[in-house]
Parts: sequence; structure tokens; C-alpha cells
Amino acid sequence: MRISSHFDGGNIECRDSSDPQHISLNIREDGAADFSQWFYFRLSGAANVACRLVIENAASCSYVEGWDDYRVVASYDRENWFRVNSRYEDGKLIIEHEPELNSLYFAYFAPYSMERHHDLIAWAADSGDCEVDVLGQTVDGRDMDMLTIGDEREGKLKYWVIARQHPGETMAEWWMEGFISRVLDKSDPIGREMLERATFYIVPNMNPDGSFRGHLRSNAAGANLNREWQTPTLERSPEVYHVLEKMKQTGVDLCFDVHGDEALPYNFIAGAEGIPSWNEHKQSQLDRFKAELVKASPDFQTKFGYDVDEPGQANMTVCTNNIAERFDCLAMTLEMPFKDTVDTPDYEQGWSPERCMRLGEASLNAMYQYTIA
Amino acid sequence: MRISSHFDGGNIECRDSSDPQHISLNIREDGAADFSQWFYFRLSGAANVACRLVIENAASCSYVEGWDDYRVVASYDRENWFRVNSRYEDGKLIIEHEPELNSLYFAYFAPYSMERHHDLIAWAADSGDCEVDVLGQTVDGRDMDMLTIGDEREGKLKYWVIARQHPGETMAEWWMEGFISRVLDKSDPIGREMLERATFYIVPNMNPDGSFRGHLRSNAAGANLNREWQTPTLERSPEVYHVLEKMKQTGVDLCFDVHGDEALPYNFIAGAEGIPSWNEHKQSQLDRFKAELVKASPDFQTKFGYDVDEPGQANMTVCTNNIAERFDCLAMTLEMPFKDTVDTPDYEQGWSPERCMRLGEASLNAMYQYTIA
Amino acid sequence: MRISSHFDGGNIECRDSSDPQHISLNIREDGAADFSQWFYFRLSGAANVACRLVIENAASCSYVEGWDDYRVVASYDRENWFRVNSRYEDGKLIIEHEPELNSLYFAYFAPYSMERHHDLIAWAADSGDCEVDVLGQTVDGRDMDMLTIGDEREGKLKYWVIARQHPGETMAEWWMEGFISRVLDKSDPIGREMLERATFYIVPNMNPDGSFRGHLRSNAAGANLNREWQTPTLERSPEVYHVLEKMKQTGVDLCFDVHGDEALPYNFIAGAEGIPSWNEHKQSQLDRFKAELVKASPDFQTKFGYDVDEPGQANMTVCTNNIAERFDCLAMTLEMPFKDTVDTPDYEQGWSPERCMRLGEASLNAMYQYTIA
Amino acid sequence: MRISSHFDGGNIECRDSSDPQHISLNIREDGAADFSQWFYFRLSGAANVACRLVIENAASCSYVEGWDDYRVVASYDRENWFRVNSRYEDGKLIIEHEPELNSLYFAYFAPYSMERHHDLIAWAADSGDCEVDVLGQTVDGRDMDMLTIGDEREGKLKYWVIARQHPGETMAEWWMEGFISRVLDKSDPIGREMLERATFYIVPNMNPDGSFRGHLRSNAAGANLNREWQTPTLERSPEVYHVLEKMKQTGVDLCFDVHGDEALPYNFIAGAEGIPSWNEHKQSQLDRFKAELVKASPDFQTKFGYDVDEPGQANMTVCTNNIAERFDCLAMTLEMPFKDTVDTPDYEQGWSPERCMRLGEASLNAMYQYTIA
Ligand SMILES: [Ca+2]
Ligand SMILES: [Ca+2]
Ligand SMILES: [Ca+2]
Ligand SMILES: [Ca+2]
Repeated sequence: MRISSHFDGGNIECRDSSDPQHISLNIREDGAADFSQWFYFRLSGAANVACRLVIENAASCSYVEGWDDYRVVASYDRENWFRVNSRYEDGKLIIEHEPELNSLYFAYFAPYSMERHHDLIAWAADSGDCEVDVLGQTVDGRDMDMLTIGDEREGKLKYWVIARQHPGETMAEWWMEGFISRVLDKSDPIGREMLERATFYIVPNMNPDGSFRGHLRSNAAGANLNREWQTPTLERSPEVYHVLEKMKQTGVDLCFDVHGDEALPYNFIAGAEGIPSWNEHKQSQLDRFKAELVKASPDFQTKFGYDVDEPGQANMTVCTNNIAERFDCLAMTLEMPFKDTVDTPDYEQGWSPERCMRLGEASLNAMYQYTIA
Repeated sequence: MRISSHFDGGNIECRDSSDPQHISLNIREDGAADFSQWFYFRLSGAANVACRLVIENAASCSYVEGWDDYRVVASYDRENWFRVNSRYEDGKLIIEHEPELNSLYFAYFAPYSMERHHDLIAWAADSGDCEVDVLGQTVDGRDMDMLTIGDEREGKLKYWVIARQHPGETMAEWWMEGFISRVLDKSDPIGREMLERATFYIVPNMNPDGSFRGHLRSNAAGANLNREWQTPTLERSPEVYHVLEKMKQTGVDLCFDVHGDEALPYNFIAGAEGIPSWNEHKQSQLDRFKAELVKASPDFQTKFGYDVDEPGQANMTVCTNNIAERFDCLAMTLEMPFKDTVDTPDYEQGWSPERCMRLGEASLNAMYQYTIA
Repeated sequence: MRISSHFDGGNIECRDSSDPQHISLNIREDGAADFSQWFYFRLSGAANVACRLVIENAASCSYVEGWDDYRVVASYDRENWFRVNSRYEDGKLIIEHEPELNSLYFAYFAPYSMERHHDLIAWAADSGDCEVDVLGQTVDGRDMDMLTIGDEREGKLKYWVIARQHPGETMAEWWMEGFISRVLDKSDPIGREMLERATFYIVPNMNPDGSFRGHLRSNAAGANLNREWQTPTLERSPEVYHVLEKMKQTGVDLCFDVHGDEALPYNFIAGAEGIPSWNEHKQSQLDRFKAELVKASPDFQTKFGYDVDEPGQANMTVCTNNIAERFDCLAMTLEMPFKDTVDTPDYEQGWSPERCMRLGEASLNAMYQYTIA
Repeated sequence: MRISSHFDGGNIECRDSSDPQHISLNIREDGAADFSQWFYFRLSGAANVACRLVIENAASCSYVEGWDDYRVVASYDRENWFRVNSRYEDGKLIIEHEPELNSLYFAYFAPYSMERHHDLIAWAADSGDCEVDVLGQTVDGRDMDMLTIGDEREGKLKYWVIARQHPGETMAEWWMEGFISRVLDKSDPIGREMLERATFYIVPNMNPDGSFRGHLRSNAAGANLNREWQTPTLERSPEVYHVLEKMKQTGVDLCFDVHGDEALPYNFIAGAEGIPSWNEHKQSQLDRFKAELVKASPDFQTKFGYDVDEPGQANMTVCTNNIAERFDCLAMTLEMPFKDTVDTPDYEQGWSPERCMRLGEASLNAMYQYTIA
């Protein structure tokens, strides 16, 4: 019986795997930074053996409330990810499961590898309706890929859509597959109409280094990228630096930043309510967008979410706040659950890659209604 | 050089194919009935030969205005259907085209074979979330397939969706592929939520005999099924008879009947405005549904369509009118173009199977919004 | 509960389906001819009902020995065909089966529809390495499709491969899918090398009318095409007439005619041993080819097969004999089982479409070794 | 314009990319070892720009003769790899190419990522006919995956098939895809018959660390694994150590080790002629196997290859020699070209993934004939 995680996005430390009933594991911290919660590992040699795997340091992870009512995802074939029984107890996350085959992968959420990222970019670039640009490079030297979809003629709206600043929030890049597929689908009238009105600038993965390293929230320099938008630097946060520079070139009329939330079992949007320039117009834009997304997807709701910032109390290092203020535009953060949506639950899969894609598709309906109103 | 149409859905009469520049064709009438416009044939042996094909009897077809601004569809691989140059001139439809390969199919619209119909039914039945029932048999002895999607527990709405009463309107069954796929997609929240509220009774093809025979509008007995809903008979219109009997068993809360229109270059909905029981409430239901479909699909519009019946002047033999009155419910006819949508045109493909599917998917958004309002 | 067969290739007569335990059926004869054994029908409305279907006239079918140790094929999804329990008893073929779903297809062997035939031709034609020609038309007016693969430069061998003279022998066209795929695969060195040496003339379906009509052995005029090669006529056997005329144009260096045998549970080859010009050289050619196919496929064998004709006693109306003599070439008939191969059985599927394709692929190995020797 | 290689299997050092006509590159050495020749990088931002890329240190790579008549592979979509113009001149490898898109990958041969390796293992494990075992871990801590196909009942032959000891020889793992697919195909009679006679032990990738790191020949400790079979150690060559230990448990009746050769434009097999126990019987076994592979694949030949070792002069640290002697069995090294096969060339793709798969499939024919003889 073996535990391994030496692969694209893997993260675990195996303390002891000698006894199937006492497999002792720790989640590794994000390299230079004090974050942890993402895990992704393979259990081999355990076919038809009742196993009990214990993540010992679950209580010291970044979002302990993330473990409540959470169930681990697993896959034999690396395509279909199902939920297995797990529970948080006495500060530990306990998985009790008897694999059917000798090789079974476990993860915090369905992983999205950098190889799949490269395939996504290559597929979009090869579709003929999309330009790919490398804006710069990450701390580790990986490419920062941006897709431009739609011509850039003058007068068109500039819509920025970015995802996965926090690399462990893989649902954000699954969402991108749905969103991008639909924007590129020439038979889809909403995609076609949107491209008449807007040029899309899309960064499907804001944090390639963290994605590969199996980080939860930070890049290779230990930076939480979503706290770097005020004054990003080439040393500490080149990922943000390059994207922001490009935004300055193109301008921004709408910014949509896609995330996952460890604790809340809901899809929701956080706005930029606490920024200095917030006003009724901006509030109504935000409300309108959210109302449209409610209509487009029953998996989305507006009742539960983060507490709204007090006026003027926004953290201006956060993407949504910074961009909303800097470009005087609608900026939003979409949060999806690691767990499931409590109002529309799926016991077998929980919140899943396929459901992320559907929400990505539905988000285009909301953007379209917002745009033409 | 040969012309043939002896296959599933084929229709042409070849008068002369000896000279590539004077290939003389006639569209055959619908067996027992005096309708004609559907054609579907194969041209072989003409690779790299400039051909001029003339449909001589175009002026005597059912909808002469259908030929204006119409372009014929063609395919080499029977999957990708593109438009070729054609024009209506001096009462004839003229196609001028030089095939790249020795075998090229031409049709009025992308064909949808009975074999594909059987595959669609088998796929749905095998999906595990769908019951298939054979309600009875057609004049020629083919099965009348109905899908029931969603459990039938008491209190749920009963939504009927039927297509292709007029067999040459193949777009209606392409629409069904999009619609059914989405209803069966467990990851789609709108599909899932709809199934909480409604049971779907779906007849993807109301006219199998006409479909196979290559008819435009009638069944094997020469009946225009959409004029048979008042008093269908087992002899003349068993297809309608069996469906109506089943409707009486289940009840009907909404009826959606999918068609194509030869002349108008628009997607639109015709309601039951002329029925005796029409009132403001019904008008507002219809308006609301149409408004939701406008939102869900830019390919749909409400400006152009059929003239609305005067109060009390509805033809009660028509499905939508009959069902609206009989079951006191919202009933509608969706019409899609054979040509293209003039507001959102696609020069290469015109209105196409893929776009029909997208509209089928979008129609579920409209049904959902209509239902929860 | 209903039985239907009004579809592409269907064949059954339902005498009574009122009692699931006594579903009474007859196989219809081949139109104008006194052959019968092919059946293909759909049972609907029988989910979770134990059914007993009886083919009453099994004893009067063409090959009664075909029912011994034979098991019927069935499919829910029309793609995966599995065997169900059936037995021949007191002159009747009895199927006892409880369907899991409301729609289940039964057949003598996995059907191969004319629509699939058209798709096969279109796919090959569109591959870029293949010419499709329509040689003429059948009695009913269907196209006789021939594929030419490989350039026709002088000095190359002319290899003819034809299938399904007997339309109920659908395994022959499944075999074609494997064979043609491999000949067209540019990455396959045997395909590439063969095309350096030979031009292939391929007729994937010699009997489109019988295929569509659900015949066992004859065309629409009642002709057993494999008894028409001496003096085919445009009236009675245009299918053979057109192919033979084309053979006269091209010449024939090898002729491979693909069939199925009702009785024998083996794959085997019948040669032209009884023709006037038979000699040691021809015998060694035949033996060599068969030995190579044994090597290429363990599903093929040479121990069991038809009795060999006495010298000079060949029926010269049969394709293999006629072509072997007429063109002084190697001509062979490949026979595949309806049942299974007793030496390499597959209980679940028996002889199957997939295994036919594998044998089609393997046959190219044999042709290649035969050719280069 | 940018060059990057920070991905799975990537290898390049970019010295200067400021001028498209003078893009200056070096191939990095294999970490701890003095080997180099594998390269794999992405060029971005160069759509429609004529580029000249120069690998400056080509003359100091491991196999300088590998550059003669060699053409670089490239891909936009990461699936289809085509050859581009390149030449070896004055000790440099020069690529002159104008990309059509902004993102183009170049490599020494079509890459095979570790993610694809994990998918291959997961697919095989999930097929139901295959056990996967992790034999141990690599120097970097990656899993050493072994597939067992076929039951292990007593008396069956034990056939070992391993690949990619030299990680830059990616063709070896492409070969595995063809070979494994066929062994697992239940419809393939050769696969089925082989599994009656032999149990397969398959290691699709002997060198995961080198594969990921973009090495040509060595593992993470700098060891050339194919010189470690005499006395492998857990420190320096755990990959070989674990496989050899498992071989000792199972025994070995045949060992097939799959490689690529930088210089020779041929597929060929190297035997163990120089081992102490070599004799006529072993020679005839080897000759017989090679003759069968010639028959199964025109891409394989026996005329060109490595010089045969003098009697008793074999390097016993090499897998084939060591296993042949240790287990007194037939052991062989299959070599495929990086270039192309000069006798059966494909100008567009050269030797390619698809052709590797075909050879993997054909190798099973040879094994089968060898086995049953
Ligand atoms: Ca986040
Ligand atoms: Ca109509
Ligand atoms: Ca036969
Ligand atoms: Ca090597």
C-alpha cells in the first residue's frame, strides 16, 4: 500500500501507510506561504481493502470550517470524480473507503492539471476565432496565457474574465471550459451576439506555479495574488503585474474573477461595495448582473455570501475592488463551493467539473442580458 | 452522372441527367396529398464538373415564397451541411455548383433520418432517466414513440413537447436533440429543477411515415396532421389519435409544438389567440413565454410571425388551438426558418442543425422561467 | 406490448403479442423468392416482464441447421448487441427473455442499416484517398456504390473485394468497416504497402435492396445474386451485371467475396476448386492465402468448411467460381458464422460486429503476405 | 516573442529571443548526467513571423549523427505533430519556420507527458482486465507502475514488456498505447489467444523522473538505466531495482525492451548475441521473432541495425543481455527511429505516434506467432 503525490498538482505528506486502518497523512503548506488545505494524492495497492486515511493536520489548515459537511472527491479513471465518505472529527479529516481497484486518486476537488491547461489553450488557439498571447512569465518561469476572443475594433466593450488566482480552487478553471466553449461556439447566438458587442480577454489560470505545485492560495513566491492588485511587482507577483499592465492597455468595462470558497455551500458573487467610488448606479449594475445569473442558473443564488464591506472599507489589494475603482467598472468575484450547493445538491458528485462548466455557460447568459439592457 | 433519392427521406424525380449543365428535376408530391417542397437527393459522378441542376416544378410547390432568398443545403459527409448557390428564376429553382467529390447530397434542409430517430430514442431510453413508450402505430405501421422524462408523481405539471407533424420540417427534430439532451443532463440545474416541477411527455417525431417517405406536410394517408386535432381517426390520422388519447390520460399544462416555416426568415411563436376561451391571462402567459425565449436566445424574436387570428376565428383542427382550448392551457407553435434568421445570419450554413439544437436548449430556459414565475 | 419491424432492414410478422408468454411470430419470406431466416424487430412495452417469443415457422426457414446452438442477438442502444437465451425446439425458435427497458431490438445478427452504409461510403469518399463511383442502380433504384482506393497506374494489381450479396449476412458489411478503415489508414504500413502494389475496387454492399427490405438471400427481383455471375441481366440482377461490367474494364487479379454462413460455427474460406482451369498452381495460391489468414487471425481456420467441389463440377454461376475462371485469378469466398466460433467463443456476444472488423483488418495481413510472396 | 519549456517534459535554454531571425537556444543536459539531445519548448508571439531558431550546442549533444537528415517535429494543438524544415549546419541545428499561430510547440519527437502516462495507467486499470501495481518509487518519489494483464495461473508464460528506460525516447510509450490497447481488446483474437498462453507484465514507463525532467537518457540520479541491470541499487537506480525484483518473483520467458535510436532511420531489433550462454537455439528464437515482425509490419526490417556483439562480449549491465542470461530466455531491444523509416517514409509526419502504435499492435502478431510455433 502506497501513497504518492509527486505529480502535476499533487499535495500530501505520507507519515505512515503501513497499516490500512491507520494511514496517517499531512497536508503540506503552500511552499513559502502559510496556507494549506489543498490535497491530491494517489493510493495504490489497496484493492478490496477497507482503508482508513487520516489527515492529521486538518485542524491547522486555512479554513477549518471548510471541513464541516465536506466529503472528499475520488476517481479511478481520472475523469469521473465521485464523493466518498469522510468526516471531520477531533481536528482530523477521516476518510473511510474500500477501493475497488489498486489505484485510486483522492483530492480536495477534481484536479485541473497544467497539462490540461496547456491543452485548453492549444484547443482555443487552434479554433480559429481566438488569439493566444503570453503576457509574461511566472516566478517559476511558466507562461501567463491570455486568450483574446472577438475582434478588437474600436468602440467595443472590453470584458476581462480571469480565474484561479488561488490555484487550489480548480473549479474556477473547470468553469472556464464551459465559458470559453460557449464563447467560441459559432452556432450559439448568445456567444455570437456578445462578440458583436465585446472583446473578451480571458486568463484561464492566473496562478500556474501554484497550480502545478499543489498550493491552495499562493504563488511560488508565497504571494496571495488576490492581495497584490494595488502594487504588484515583477518579483513577488508577476502574474498580477502582467495582467494589470495589459488591462491598462485595453481598458476594462467588466471584470469577472472566478474563485472557489472552502466554507460556504453556495454559488455567490461578491461585489466591490466598499470602494470609494461606490454609488447607486454601481449597486444597481451589480444587482442586475446577479439577478440575471439567478435566472440563468438555479445553482446560483444571492441570499448567502460574504458580508458586504462597509462603505470605503474595501481592501483595495483585492482584484475586484482594485479593478472596479481603477477602471470605474463593474467588477465581481464569483465563488463556487468545494462542497455542494445545499439547495440543489447532488449526493453522488457534489459540486463537480460538469456543474462548473454549466455555470460557466450560464454566466454568459447573465453577461449578455447585463450588456444589452 | 446520376441522381438518386431511394433512401430514408429522399425525394426527387430525375427527368434527365445526361448533360451536367441541364440536369432536370422535379419534386415529387406527398403521396396521397397535394403538397410538395421537400427534396433530398444524391448527385454522383460529378467531381470537378460544373453542374446546373434545375428543379422545374418549383413554381407549383406548396410555398412559392419559400424560394425567395433561399439557398439549398448540401453535404459530402452527411454530417456537415453547408449552403450552396441557388436561385429562384422563372418559376424554377436553379442550383449552380461544382462538386469537389463524386458523391454530394442536396436537400431542402439538413435531413433527419428515421434511423437517426431510432438512435435518438434508444439513446434516451438507455440514459436511465427516461421511459420510452410506443403509443400506437402509424398508417404504414411504424411505432409512435413517446419519451417520459421525470417521475410522474401527483401534483407535477404535465408538459407536452411534440415535433415534426410536418415531416419535411426536419429542423424540428434537430431542435429535439438539443432540448432532450439538456433535459437529461443531470449536471444542468435548469433541467434538474424543471424535473422537480414537471413531467415531460415528448414526441420527437409525430410523422414517421412522412419522414421516411420524403413528404413535406402529410402522412401516408395524405393527412396534414396539424389539421386533425379536432377529430383524429385511426384510419386517417392515427399519429394524432394516439397522442391525443395519451394527453387525455395525463392532462396537459403546457403544449409546445415544433415546426419550420418555408417563407419567413425568423424564429417565432404562434399562439392560440383565436380560441373561444382566450383572455387576458392567456395572453399574458403567451407574452411572458415569448419574452423569456427572446432573453434566452437572440435567434428568437417576436416582431415578425403569422397574423394573429381574430377572436373566435381559430382553426380548431390545429394542434395549438385545439390543445389550448381542450386542456385550458398554454399551447404554442414554434416556427424555425428553412432559410436563415435575417437578423443573425450565418452565410455558410444558414439556419442549421447545430443552431436548432441551441434553440432547443434555450427553450428550456424559457420554460423554466415561465414555470417558476 | 408491441412488435414492430417497419424500419431499415426489419423483418417479422407478428401473429399475436397480447400475452407476453405467448408472443407468436413468423419470419417473412424474401419478397419474390422462397428464402427466409433473417429477422429483425423491436419489442416495446415489456420492461421487467418475462417474455416468451416464439418464431413459429423456424422449421420452414432456409437453413434449419442454422438454429442448432444458435442464440439470438439483442440490443437496447442499437450499438451493443449481446446474445440472449434462445433455443430451437419442436420446429420453433423460442426466446425467453425479460427486458430491462421498454424498448429492445432482436435480430438474427447485428443489423447493418442502409443509412450506415451511406455513412460508410460518405466517410470513405471524404477521406481524400478514395474515389466513390456509382456503377448503376438496383432493381428498386438504389445506387450501387463502389470505392476505388489507391491510384490506378498501369501495372498495379487489381484486387476486388465485395460483400453482402446475401443481404441478411450483415457480418459481411461489418467486416468491410474493419477492412476499409485499415486500407485508408495512412499510418498503417500494410495498408500503405498494399496500395503501392494494388488498386482496390470495393463494393461494401452488393445487395442494397435486399438489405433494406430485410431479405436473407435475394434481391428485389427474387434473385440469389450469387447464382447470377454467368449471365447477369439488367432486369433480374443489375447489381451483378454492373459489377461484372466494371470488372471487365479493370481486370481482376484477386477477388474476395465476403459472406456469412447460417450453420457452421467457424470462419472459413471456400475456393474455386471445381472450375475447369483449376490446377496445382491455383491450389497452392489458395492454400497459401488461407495459411496466411490462419496466421493473421486465430478466429480463422481451415479444418472445417464446405465440401470441395469435384474437379470440373463447380457451379459457374457462383461469383468465386465464375471470376476465378473468367479472369484466371485467385477468387475466394469468406464465410463467417451467425453463431460463434466454437474454438474461440465469446459467450456474451458470440460472433459480433467488433470481431468482424478485426477479421477484416486481419484479412489485409493475409492479402499482403499473399501479394509479396 | 517568447520561448518557454517549464512544463512536463520540457527542455530548452533560451539564450536570446529578441530577434526572430536569431533565436538562440541551447539544449540543457540531463541534470546529473552528461547526456543531451532531447528538446521540447513552446514559441509564443510569433504568428506570421518568419523565424530562425538555432540550437547552438547541437554539436556537443550525445548523438551528433542524430542530426543528419533529421527534421524537427512541431504542433499547434499538441495532438497532431508534423515535421518542419530544419538542418544541421556548422555544428548547429537550424529551424526555419513561420508559425501560423501565436503558440507553437517544437520537440525532438512527439512528447509523451507524465499526465498522459497517468491517464494510460488509469484507463488500463479501469478496463477490468488488468491489475495495476506500484512496484516502488523513483529517485524523485514517483510511482513505478506495472500492469499485469491476464490471469497468473500456473504454467503460463511470463512475458515482460518494458519501455522508455531512456526517457527522451517517447516513441517507446506511444508504442505502448498500441500494444496495450490490443492486448486489452476482447474482440481481438490474437490478444485473447495470447492471454490464454501468457501473462503480460508491462512497465510502460521505466523512467518517470527523466520523462518529467525532459532528460534524454538518465534518471534523476544521473543513471543510464540501461546500464544498471547487473547490480541496480535503491539509491542510484531504484527503477531497475524494483522491476528486477519483481522479475525474480514472476520469472521471465520473454523480455521486450522498447527504445528509440537517434541515428538510424530504421526499426530494428537488437538481441543478446554476446552473452555467455548464447547458442544456436537462442539465435533461432531471435531470428524467428524478427522474421515474424517483418511479416507483421513493413515498417520493420532486419537488414540495418547495431553491430552484433562478439561471442561473450555482451555488456551485461544492459537489460536485454542481463535478462537473457539471468532468466535463460529470449530478450530483445526494439529500436524505433527519431527520424523516419527510409524505406517507408512519410514526408509530412516522419516516424510518428500513430505509426508507433501500429508497430505496437503488429508486435503482438509477432509475439503470438513466436509463442505458438
Ligand atoms: Ca478564493
Ligand atoms: Ca409546419
Ligand atoms: Ca452467403
Ligand atoms: Ca535507447
